[in-house]
Amino acid sequence: MDGARTGDAKTGDDGGGAEAGPPALVDHHCHSVLDAELDDDELAGLLTESDRPPAPGTSPLDSALGLAVRRWCPPVLGLPAHAPATDYLARRRELGAPEATRRLLAAAGLDTCLVDTGLLAAAGRPLLPLPEFAALTGADVREVVRLEALAEALDPAAAAWPGAVRAAVGAAVEGGAVALKSVLAYRHGLDIPAERPTDREVVAAAGARLRAGGGRLTDQVLLRHLLWTALDACAGRGLPIQLHTGFGDPDLTLHRADPALLAGFVRAAEPTGVPLVLLHGYPYHRQAAWLAQAFPQVYADLGLTASYVGPRVAAVLGEMLELAPFGKLLFSTDGYGLPELHLVGAAQFRHGLGALLASWRADGACSAGDVTRIARLLSAGNARRLYRL
Amino acid sequence: MDGARTGDAKTGDDGGGAEAGPPALVDHHCHSVLDAELDDDELAGLLTESDRPPAPGTSPLDSALGLAVRRWCPPVLGLPAHAPATDYLARRRELGAPEATRRLLAAAGLDTCLVDTGLLAAAGRPLLPLPEFAALTGADVREVVRLEALAEALDPAAAAWPGAVRAAVGAAVEGGAVALKSVLAYRHGLDIPAERPTDREVVAAAGARLRAGGGRLTDQVLLRHLLWTALDACAGRGLPIQLHTGFGDPDLTLHRADPALLAGFVRAAEPTGVPLVLLHGYPYHRQAAWLAQAFPQVYADLGLTASYVGPRVAAVLGEMLELAPFGKLLFSTDGYGLPELHLVGAAQFRHGLGALLASWRADGACSAGDVTRIARLLSAGNARRLYRL
Amino acid sequence: MDGARTGDAKTGDDGGGAEAGPPALVDHHCHSVLDAELDDDELAGLLTESDRPPAPGTSPLDSALGLAVRRWCPPVLGLPAHAPATDYLARRRELGAPEATRRLLAAAGLDTCLVDTGLLAAAGRPLLPLPEFAALTGADVREVVRLEALAEALDPAAAAWPGAVRAAVGAAVEGGAVALKSVLAYRHGLDIPAERPTDREVVAAAGARLRAGGGRLTDQVLLRHLLWTALDACAGRGLPIQLHTGFGDPDLTLHRADPALLAGFVRAAEPTGVPLVLLHGYPYHRQAAWLAQAFPQVYADLGLTASYVGPRVAAVLGEMLELAPFGKLLFSTDGYGLPELHLVGAAQFRHGLGALLASWRADGACSAGDVTRIARLLSAGNARRLYRL
Repeated sequence: MDGARTGDAKTGDDGGGAEAGPPALVDHHCHSVLDAELDDDELAGLLTESDRPPAPGTSPLDSALGLAVRRWCPPVLGLPAHAPATDYLARRRELGAPEATRRLLAAAGLDTCLVDTGLLAAAGRPLLPLPEFAALTGADVREVVRLEALAEALDPAAAAWPGAVRAAVGAAVEGGAVALKSVLAYRHGLDIPAERPTDREVVAAAGARLRAGGGRLTDQVLLRHLLWTALDACAGRGLPIQLHTGFGDPDLTLHRADPALLAGFVRAAEPTGVPLVLLHGYPYHRQAAWLAQAFPQVYADLGLTASYVGPRVAAVLGEMLELAPFGKLLFSTDGYGLPELHLVGAAQFRHGLGALLASWRADGACSAGDVTRIARLLSAGNARRLYRL
Repeated sequence: MDGARTGDAKTGDDGGGAEAGPPALVDHHCHSVLDAELDDDELAGLLTESDRPPAPGTSPLDSALGLAVRRWCPPVLGLPAHAPATDYLARRRELGAPEATRRLLAAAGLDTCLVDTGLLAAAGRPLLPLPEFAALTGADVREVVRLEALAEALDPAAAAWPGAVRAAVGAAVEGGAVALKSVLAYRHGLDIPAERPTDREVVAAAGARLRAGGGRLTDQVLLRHLLWTALDACAGRGLPIQLHTGFGDPDLTLHRADPALLAGFVRAAEPTGVPLVLLHGYPYHRQAAWLAQAFPQVYADLGLTASYVGPRVAAVLGEMLELAPFGKLLFSTDGYGLPELHLVGAAQFRHGLGALLASWRADGACSAGDVTRIARLLSAGNARRLYRL
Repeated sequence: MDGARTGDAKTGDDGGGAEAGPPALVDHHCHSVLDAELDDDELAGLLTESDRPPAPGTSPLDSALGLAVRRWCPPVLGLPAHAPATDYLARRRELGAPEATRRLLAAAGLDTCLVDTGLLAAAGRPLLPLPEFAALTGADVREVVRLEALAEALDPAAAAWPGAVRAAVGAAVEGGAVALKSVLAYRHGLDIPAERPTDREVVAAAGARLRAGGGRLTDQVLLRHLLWTALDACAGRGLPIQLHTGFGDPDLTLHRADPALLAGFVRAAEPTGVPLVLLHGYPYHRQAAWLAQAFPQVYADLGLTASYVGPRVAAVLGEMLELAPFGKLLFSTDGYGLPELHLVGAAQFRHGLGALLASWRADGACSAGDVTRIARLLSAGNARRLYRL
C-alpha cells in the first residue's frame, strides 16, 4: 500500500490471501489521454477544474494537486520527487510527450480501466483511441457510455425522441458498455423530481429542444427521461449507472450537485435493482456515504477527490469510510487528458489508504487482516463484483 | 478515558476533583434492547441504519461500525479483540442471548440512561421493559417520551385534536418524563415554518388526517403543533426537548435533516426558555455546534455518530468540539436493540474523547486539568445539569 | 511558523528567500479594539458569536476559542500559558485595559491591518480610532468600507437612491479604501438572483424602505443593487470586494450563508474582473475553496475560523487548503473589540499552519521549500498582491 508498485499486482486475489505486494487496482472511472506536446499553460490548465486562465500571480500547479503531481511524477521521468514545476515541465518536453505518457501510464500500475468515452478531446486536441490507451496502460480497458453525449448525437422528430433514445441506450448496452454514466449534475443539478416523466412530457420537451436548435442537452425532463431509459436498459443486466456528484468545473453549481438531493430518485429507482454509483461527491462525500449505507443499490467513488486534495488524502478517505460499508467503495483516478492524473490518482490512493489503515491499526481499531482485506475491496474487489469483471 | 472502566464511576464529581479512573457516563439518549436469540442476518441488520437486505457480496458488519463492534465486544464474551465476525456470532449463540446481553450491558458502565420509549420493538421482537433494562445496565433509568408516538395513539375528533394532544403531552410531563423527543426530521424534515400554527389550521389538518384513516403522523401542521404543545408543557419546568437531526434510516431525506434548517424555529422558541437538544447531527454536526454556540437554549449530542464512524471517532468528535461550548455537548450511545451498541457507544466515546484530548494536550493546546474537566462535562456533568438528575 | 515572532517580520520577502524567522503577517480583515475596562461577563461576551447571555452553568470561555485565549494570551500578561480564566481576568484588570491592550496587540506581530470600519462599537463602547489602533499594533493600517453601513447613512428620496448610493460608494473608493465589504449574508442570505436589478426595481424598493422608516438595510433588491454598484466602482481599479460567508452571530441563518449559493452572482460578476474575497466560510469552507479554484476572481479567507476552532486549527486549515490554489488564500484575524482576538488570530494561524505544513513535509507530501513558500503566500504575499499593498 505505498506509491511504489511491484509487478505482481495482476494476481488480483481479493479474498484475503497471503501474498505480499499492493493489491491490483481496478480504475472504475477514467478517461483517455493526450500524447501531443502541450505548452506549459495548456498542461497546467489540465491540473484544475477551472477552464479559465489563472488569476494574476497564481498557478494551478501551486495547489494540493500540484504538490501531488510533483511528488509522484518527477521520479518516473528521472527527476527527484518535488522537483520544481519548471524543471518537471522542461524534462517532460525533453523526453517528448509520447515517451512521458508511456512512462507515466505504465507507472500507474492499473490492472483494469473503465473509460468514460463521453469526452473525446482535451485542450482542444483529440484523446488517444481506446486501443492505444490500453496498450500504454497495460490494462484491460472497458467502455462506459455517457448518456448525454449519446442523446445529443440523435436528431429525431419530437415524437420519435423516446424511441430514439431507447434504441441508442439499448445499442450502447448491447455493444459491450460496462456501465452508463450521467452528468445530470452539470446539466441541471441533482434536484430533480423522483418519478419517471410521461411520454407526453418528453415529446413536448423534445419539441421545444428542436425549436431551440438542439445542442447541449439541459432540459430537466429530457435528462430525467434519459436516466429512466438507462434504468430500463440496465435492469436485469446488472449494469450500473454512474452519476457525477460533487465538485467539478465552473459549469456546475456546487450545492445542486450534492448527492443527498438524489434521495427521491434513489428510492424511486430502487425496484429496478440497478446499481447507482455516485462519483466523487466531495465536499458532500459523507452524504454519498450515507446513501451507500442506507440503500443497497448505491455505491460511492473515491476518485478525483483523492488526487485533488493532495497531502490531505488520508484524512479525506477517512471521511468517506465513516458511513459507507467497505463493500460499497470504489477506487478510481478520473484521469483525463494528462497521464500524470492517472499516475497521481493511483499513487495517491495507494499512499493515502495505506496511511489511513496503518493509523487505524496503530490505534487498535482493526487487525492486520482487516487492513489487507479493506485495501483489496476498495482497490479492486468491489469493482470486480459490481461491474462483473 | 479508555475503553476499560473501573467500578467507582458513580462518584460523579464533575467539578474537576482529583480521583482517578474514567468519569461516570450519563447516556442521555438510548433505547432498550432485545435479549432474544437472533440469527446472524437479524443481528447484522441492527448494525446499519438501512432496513433493507445488504447488497450482494456486502455485509453491514464490514464497516466502520462493524470494526468498532469487533474491537470492543469480543473481549467481553471471552474472545480476543478483532475476532472475526463469524467467531463472534458463534460465541454469542453459545453463551445465549440473555447472558451475552447481561455481559455487554454491564461492561458499558453506564451510570444513568435516559431511554426513548417511542420504539417498542426491534427486528420484529419486543424490547425489554425498562425495569429489566435497568437491572441489566445497573444504571438509573429515566424515560424520554416520543411526541409522535404519543399523538399517534390518540383518536379524537378533529376539533378535539389540540386539547387531546395537550392533555397527552401534559400527562407525559406529569408522569415523570425527563424529556420529550421529536422525530420531525423523519416525518417531514426540519424545514418548517417557524411560527406556531393556529388552532384553525390544526383542526383542519386533524380533519384531513382523520379522513385519510390516521396512521403515521406526517402532516407538517400537526407535527409543528405537537412541537409547540411540547414547548408549552416544558416551559417553566426546565424539561428539554430532544430533536432527531442528521443521518438515520432510509426513511429520512438527509439534507432535510440538517439542523441549520431549525434556525427559525429556534429563534421563535427562544422566549420559552425550553432547552432544545439536537441529537446526532452528522454530517451536519458542525451546523449543530454553531447553533449551540449562538443560542443559549440549544445543546448538541455526540452519540450514534461516535459509534458509526468507528476508527474515525476522535476526528469526528474533534469537529463537534470546534464551535460548541464545552458546556453544551452531551454523551449518548443511542444504543437500540443490540446491547453491543450500548457497549460500543460507551467505549467509542471514552476512547475517542480520550485520544482527542490527549492529542490537544500533546500539542500544547490545553492543560491536564482542562482534559479532566472537559471529559467530565461531556461524560455526565452537562447531562446532570440539563436534565436536573 | 510558531506562535513566537521575531522582530524582523517586516522584511516581507514572499519570493522564497532564505532569511530565518516567521513570515510577516498581513491581516486582511479585522476590526479595531476597545481599551476600556470591561467586566468579566462583557469580556466573555466578546469571545462568542452569540449576543445572548450564556446558558446557566456554561461560559463562552469554556470552548475551543477559550482554550486558545488561555494558551496564547496569559504569557503576554506575565502568567503561564493555560492559566485559569479567573486568574487571567484578574491579571488583566490589575494591569489595566490600556496596558493589556498594548501588550496583546504588540504581541500579535501584525505587519499590515485592513480594518473593516463598519462596526464602530463593541459591548456598547466605542472602538479605538484607526490612528490609535495603528499605533498600538505597530502595523500599517488601511480601511475597508462596509457597504451596508454606507448605504444606511444615506437619506435620499427614492428616485435619488441609485445616484446617492453610486456617489457614496464612489467616494469611499476615491477616499482610499483598500476594499469594500458586504454583509449580505447577514442581511438577507447569499441566495440572491444573479443579475443586476433594474433602476425601476431599485427605486421601488427604496420607496418601500422610506415608507417603512428606513433603518437596517435588509431589502434584497437594495442589497443586490449595492453589490452591483460596488462592482462598478471597483472595476478597473483592482479593488476587491469582501463578502461575509459562513458562521457568525445569531442574526445569521447559517445555511443561507453557504458561499456555494453565490455561484450565479460570481458568474454574472466575472466580466467585471473585480476580485471577490469570501470571508470565513466555515462550515462551508470547502465550498469556498472550490469557488476559489473554479473562478479566477474568487479568493478565500482563513480567519475567524482559525481562532474559533482552537485546538483543531491545523485540521481545519487543512480542509481549506484541499481545493483552493495556494495563491488564493488569505490570513486574517477578524479580531474585534478584544485585543486578545488579534493575538489569538495571529498565533493560531502561525501555529496551525506550521503544524499542518510540518505534517505534510513529514509525510513526504512536499519539500522544505514548499513549506516556506506556502507559508509566505498565505501570511502576506497573496494579500500584498491582491490588495496592491
